[in-house]
Amino acid sequence: MSQSPAPDILRCAYMEIVVTDLAASRKFYVDTLGLVVTYEDENAIYLRTYEEFIHHNLILRKGPVAAVAAFSYRVRSPQDLDLAEEFYRARGCEVRRNPNGFVRGIGDSVRVQDPLGFPYEFFYEVEHRPRLAWSYDIHIPGALVRLDHFNQITPDVPRAVAYMENLGFRTTEDIRDSEGTVYAAWMRRKPTVHDTAMTGGDGPRMHHIAFATHEKHNIIAICDKLGALRESDRIERGPGRHGVSNAFYLYLRDPDGHRVEIYTQDYYTGDPDNPLVSWDVHDNQRRDWWGTPVVPSWYRDGSRVLDLDGEPVPLVERREESELAQTIGADGFSYTRPDDGESMPEWKQGEYKLGNQL
Amino acid sequence: MSQSPAPDILRCAYMEIVVTDLAASRKFYVDTLGLVVTYEDENAIYLRTYEEFIHHNLILRKGPVAAVAAFSYRVRSPQDLDLAEEFYRARGCEVRRNPNGFVRGIGDSVRVQDPLGFPYEFFYEVEHRPRLAWSYDIHIPGALVRLDHFNQITPDVPRAVAYMENLGFRTTEDIRDSEGTVYAAWMRRKPTVHDTAMTGGDGPRMHHIAFATHEKHNIIAICDKLGALRESDRIERGPGRHGVSNAFYLYLRDPDGHRVEIYTQDYYTGDPDNPLVSWDVHDNQRRDWWGTPVVPSWYRDGSRVLDLDGEPVPLVERREESELAQTIGADGFSYTRPDDGESMPEWKQGEYKLGNQL
Amino acid sequence: MSQSPAPDILRCAYMEIVVTDLAASRKFYVDTLGLVVTYEDENAIYLRTYEEFIHHNLILRKGPVAAVAAFSYRVRSPQDLDLAEEFYRARGCEVRRNPNGFVRGIGDSVRVQDPLGFPYEFFYEVEHRPRLAWSYDIHIPGALVRLDHFNQITPDVPRAVAYMENLGFRTTEDIRDSEGTVYAAWMRRKPTVHDTAMTGGDGPRMHHIAFATHEKHNIIAICDKLGALRESDRIERGPGRHGVSNAFYLYLRDPDGHRVEIYTQDYYTGDPDNPLVSWDVHDNQRRDWWGTPVVPSWYRDGSRVLDLDGEPVPLVERREESELAQTIGADGFSYTRPDDGESMPEWKQGEYKLGNQL
Amino acid sequence: MSQSPAPDILRCAYMEIVVTDLAASRKFYVDTLGLVVTYEDENAIYLRTYEEFIHHNLILRKGPVAAVAAFSYRVRSPQDLDLAEEFYRARGCEVRRNPNGFVRGIGDSVRVQDPLGFPYEFFYEVEHRPRLAWSYDIHIPGALVRLDHFNQITPDVPRAVAYMENLGFRTTEDIRDSEGTVYAAWMRRKPTVHDTAMTGGDGPRMHHIAFATHEKHNIIAICDKLGALRESDRIERGPGRHGVSNAFYLYLRDPDGHRVEIYTQDYYTGDPDNPLVSWDVHDNQRRDWWGTPVVPSWYRDGSRVLDLDGEPVPLVERREESELAQTIGADGFSYTRPDDGESMPEWKQGEYKLGNQL
Repeated sequence: MSQSPAPDILRCAYMEIVVTDLAASRKFYVDTLGLVVTYEDENAIYLRTYEEFIHHNLILRKGPVAAVAAFSYRVRSPQDLDLAEEFYRARGCEVRRNPNGFVRGIGDSVRVQDPLGFPYEFFYEVEHRPRLAWSYDIHIPGALVRLDHFNQITPDVPRAVAYMENLGFRTTEDIRDSEGTVYAAWMRRKPTVHDTAMTGGDGPRMHHIAFATHEKHNIIAICDKLGALRESDRIERGPGRHGVSNAFYLYLRDPDGHRVEIYTQDYYTGDPDNPLVSWDVHDNQRRDWWGTPVVPSWYRDGSRVLDLDGEPVPLVERREESELAQTIGADGFSYTRPDDGESMPEWKQGEYKLGNQL
Repeated sequence: MSQSPAPDILRCAYMEIVVTDLAASRKFYVDTLGLVVTYEDENAIYLRTYEEFIHHNLILRKGPVAAVAAFSYRVRSPQDLDLAEEFYRARGCEVRRNPNGFVRGIGDSVRVQDPLGFPYEFFYEVEHRPRLAWSYDIHIPGALVRLDHFNQITPDVPRAVAYMENLGFRTTEDIRDSEGTVYAAWMRRKPTVHDTAMTGGDGPRMHHIAFATHEKHNIIAICDKLGALRESDRIERGPGRHGVSNAFYLYLRDPDGHRVEIYTQDYYTGDPDNPLVSWDVHDNQRRDWWGTPVVPSWYRDGSRVLDLDGEPVPLVERREESELAQTIGADGFSYTRPDDGESMPEWKQGEYKLGNQL
Repeated sequence: MSQSPAPDILRCAYMEIVVTDLAASRKFYVDTLGLVVTYEDENAIYLRTYEEFIHHNLILRKGPVAAVAAFSYRVRSPQDLDLAEEFYRARGCEVRRNPNGFVRGIGDSVRVQDPLGFPYEFFYEVEHRPRLAWSYDIHIPGALVRLDHFNQITPDVPRAVAYMENLGFRTTEDIRDSEGTVYAAWMRRKPTVHDTAMTGGDGPRMHHIAFATHEKHNIIAICDKLGALRESDRIERGPGRHGVSNAFYLYLRDPDGHRVEIYTQDYYTGDPDNPLVSWDVHDNQRRDWWGTPVVPSWYRDGSRVLDLDGEPVPLVERREESELAQTIGADGFSYTRPDDGESMPEWKQGEYKLGNQL
Repeated sequence: MSQSPAPDILRCAYMEIVVTDLAASRKFYVDTLGLVVTYEDENAIYLRTYEEFIHHNLILRKGPVAAVAAFSYRVRSPQDLDLAEEFYRARGCEVRRNPNGFVRGIGDSVRVQDPLGFPYEFFYEVEHRPRLAWSYDIHIPGALVRLDHFNQITPDVPRAVAYMENLGFRTTEDIRDSEGTVYAAWMRRKPTVHDTAMTGGDGPRMHHIAFATHEKHNIIAICDKLGALRESDRIERGPGRHGVSNAFYLYLRDPDGHRVEIYTQDYYTGDPDNPLVSWDVHDNQRRDWWGTPVVPSWYRDGSRVLDLDGEPVPLVERREESELAQTIGADGFSYTRPDDGESMPEWKQGEYKLGNQL
């Protein structure tokens, strides 16, 4: 099985999501976040970031149930599609190929339901569109310049990591405990911290899609704009600084509850011996470098994913410890200083006890 | 009483605080926050910001109980000290004058216990020190460039506002409810949103002292540094954007629990008809423009203040509604969109119900 | 003469400029710089900044010759207009008063041709407009948030300073040489580095009007946008850091050649003993802290001003040394390190010799 | 010749430069720019950036003549060193291999004098050092976080491009004229705009080495610090926005005249069909998006390079048109708007005529 060589994946390229109210989603992604419309009709909107030159980074498709229809990766050459087919057939997965593409702007493509249950797509052929990097006359204060990564929820993180490493991904960071349980792992093809991450939980579900800005103030501008629009309740978590990835972040929820991260300034990971960074699940600076507690919905919620026939994929429950329980739940604890154990300033204990009551 | 004219106050100038562990406080204010040492000995440290030209903006004085010894304002001329004496004597307040100053670097000064119980100081004479605005070789990423304001906790906000307006302050913003209860008011002499604010609660207590940075990234740099030092639990609230003042903020707690705000980018208020901005206590964007809930300790905690003999001033309980109860407490509610009432996204209700259980 | 007390001036409030092509000016000030239109018709456009609450900060009026019709200041009370009238009549100046205002949105006003030949206006009554500080949904990356200052060209700077000090202004910084010649002076009412500056040269002319942004990246965004619009030749000088004022700056030229500065982050100057900062005319960090040479047009060009009948005021030649000649002209020199004299890196001498040939 | 396959190069990794005054260079690179010292003795200093995990990104080696001893690239595996040897031997180049490395911290290495005369190095084995990305307690305002690229001067750019493409590099952008002359080309391995660029001129010489910051304000902080140190004459050009690469930049000259660029925010180029961006040599926004003229020294000066015996490599003169002459020299012209030809605002013509007299 592991003999079938992996396709040479360049990067995460786009996500296709199903939204229930296309107008509401357009308002969020186009009017508020400022993604650029490459194409739209009454059923779908194709969007890209300012620095993208391929046709799209996000498709909003109207449908009855909010879900993810495809996590799509670009490969290095047309021949890699044959490798993708073989790779997944060897793993007993459902595989479909469409020489004309499953969506607009994309040519010959392979879609699979992968071993974890996710709808993955691979393509090389794609229409080009103008890269708007220099079009500062149309940039907004919160300009989204690149698609950065996906994040997926899956019950068995080590199994997911093993599969993805066979697919050619490398792990850059992870969250573990002293018992050996792995709670999450970050995996990359392009030399950033990740093209996708595997987050432990009932799955398959999509945790979030992340777009990059150039600077931190761009992310703050998005928050400020949401406040001005009286849409601040779209902000789920942040802005803050991640421990994992060292990036500055913000999490939003779109009108269907799909989670969108805005992200900036992680680091170069392209060397083969790039050091793995492992975080202790009890380190409360792992997910937020400033120790800001993660809200429960962030751990809890995710978007369902669709199989190749468009049906929701059934969930498999996570059997191992949940990160939520380990750190802010009933039995959980976390620390700021490793040797302090649970100590924290007296004034702060009220809030943390509260965390324990969730 | 109202006939005795007020001294012409220029601005809040410095605060004198009592700290229980001078070395720990030095580590926080000097090594971490980077305030500039003007003078120090075994009992006290005098600190200033990079753009200050007067002797100090903060005194850390070693003592047995953490408290505030003085809220000090600079007046326009030596003659204003006579006016200050008369103003407070006419109000039956304890007034003391020291032609040599109560602290180093300051000359002729008046200290009073004001009608609200706070130790207020007024001075004009002061030693100059080099303004380090251009000394970029010693600036740090989180450079504190000015003292911006104080914030005081007092039980009866309208009474406090009336007194402060007699003292020549103007109200720029406040928080109210439809019943007419005032929860907080922002008051200025220099043309920013405030030199001090009156926050409703058991008082007299000091809520915080605030220093300004030039840009938002400077505030983020302070958070990042606290994370690197594994001192992220000094962060109590934020960073975020205030609704009131429109400034970007961060709240820290020093080793004694004194609260320090880092603040940037409010607006010019110097015209006499500068419009008052009134916020509804139920508007959840009033204290954080992005709707981030305020942590309970921020409402609850404050520093005791000392009388002119150095004894803690007894607290008077607030009788009116508390902002905490009105907005996140048992009976409270808050809204993002005024006409939505309590509606909010389903995914967020968990957290907000939680807020209701505090 | 000096007995007639000065009106109590709050701040520079707006400038009225004559432009020859209203559509071209609208494109620049509204479409490119993003100033907010308060009112417009076929003859004039009234503009304000995002944080302003008075009717306007700039009037573009269509006319045959590009010029400045008014430098307008707001005073503290209606009574200050009487003081303004007396102040200027005592100086033999042409004084006109219009209880209905000379322009829209402004009530009772005094206009004078001041002793230096400039058309100065004073007013208190003004219509309010919404302060758009919180309207982040309409802010652009290069958001202009306040009018900061004017800058005037006049032949005799010490004479101008003496007059302005009688008018209640204070000098915060200046440029001098060891012979005592004063080349420029910065003067303030509000507690920033200036409400206006006096620049030595043939006058009366207007050197520039300056708007403030919150952060440095906002200024860079304006440059980037001008590049995207292929209007980069509107940039005359900068962006850079001033020595004088310590602010970050950019100079643009509008379609008529009127100079506009974008400016951010000077310091508080409101104390009566605020230290004067004097710069040596030969210090090449005085006008740009990074030593970037000032372009000759910046020294050379300025906008003509109109008298109260709308006629251009004749120019008076400067008799003293010009700053251009002192520093980059034929006989000039400048230094980076005071004791180095003219030494500089060998690789840089080519450019500086060039400067000497101008 | 083209059959010998290229080594798989990951990225530019470090440069070894000879400096004549090690203490002066240390002051510049360590005290001012804040590069992190990995190792130093009386003959050499090894430096790295905050986000680097390999031993060094820059070696300062004391020597009699300022020059570049090595442009060093990291390859994907030890085996790539054999390919490198063969690749260069097939081209008749001087090749040396040292299994213990030519410098500290690096293992088995190949050094060659390449077909253009440059001393190129390839290595895989390297000691790791802590990545200081999270060490915000020691970051400075102008933090250099990565080595970004080299830039080389060579007389025949198309020849250089052909050789580098054989070596596996891809061209992302170039500068050309309508006659087909190529003035410069940007070439990458890692998916940024470049790992090195080929600039037309007498060569082989090193044009610059570039380090990256996270944000634009970090670059401004370096300028501000140089001003505070009265070292502003180390700034040769900028800060500004490049047209080519879309990055924000600053050029400095070290105590020996070696040129250092500080650079931030170019774009992802990792797809095989990444569109080439070609700029017209007459477009004055190609090198500075804001149209700021490039200073002559920037075109003129470069550092000599050493052969494998440490002797300066003789220069070969460029025979084609120089970019300096084409755009700012005697016969040159440049435009802001392609269809405007040489038109520009009247006020600006003085300076541009000046440009023509260089």
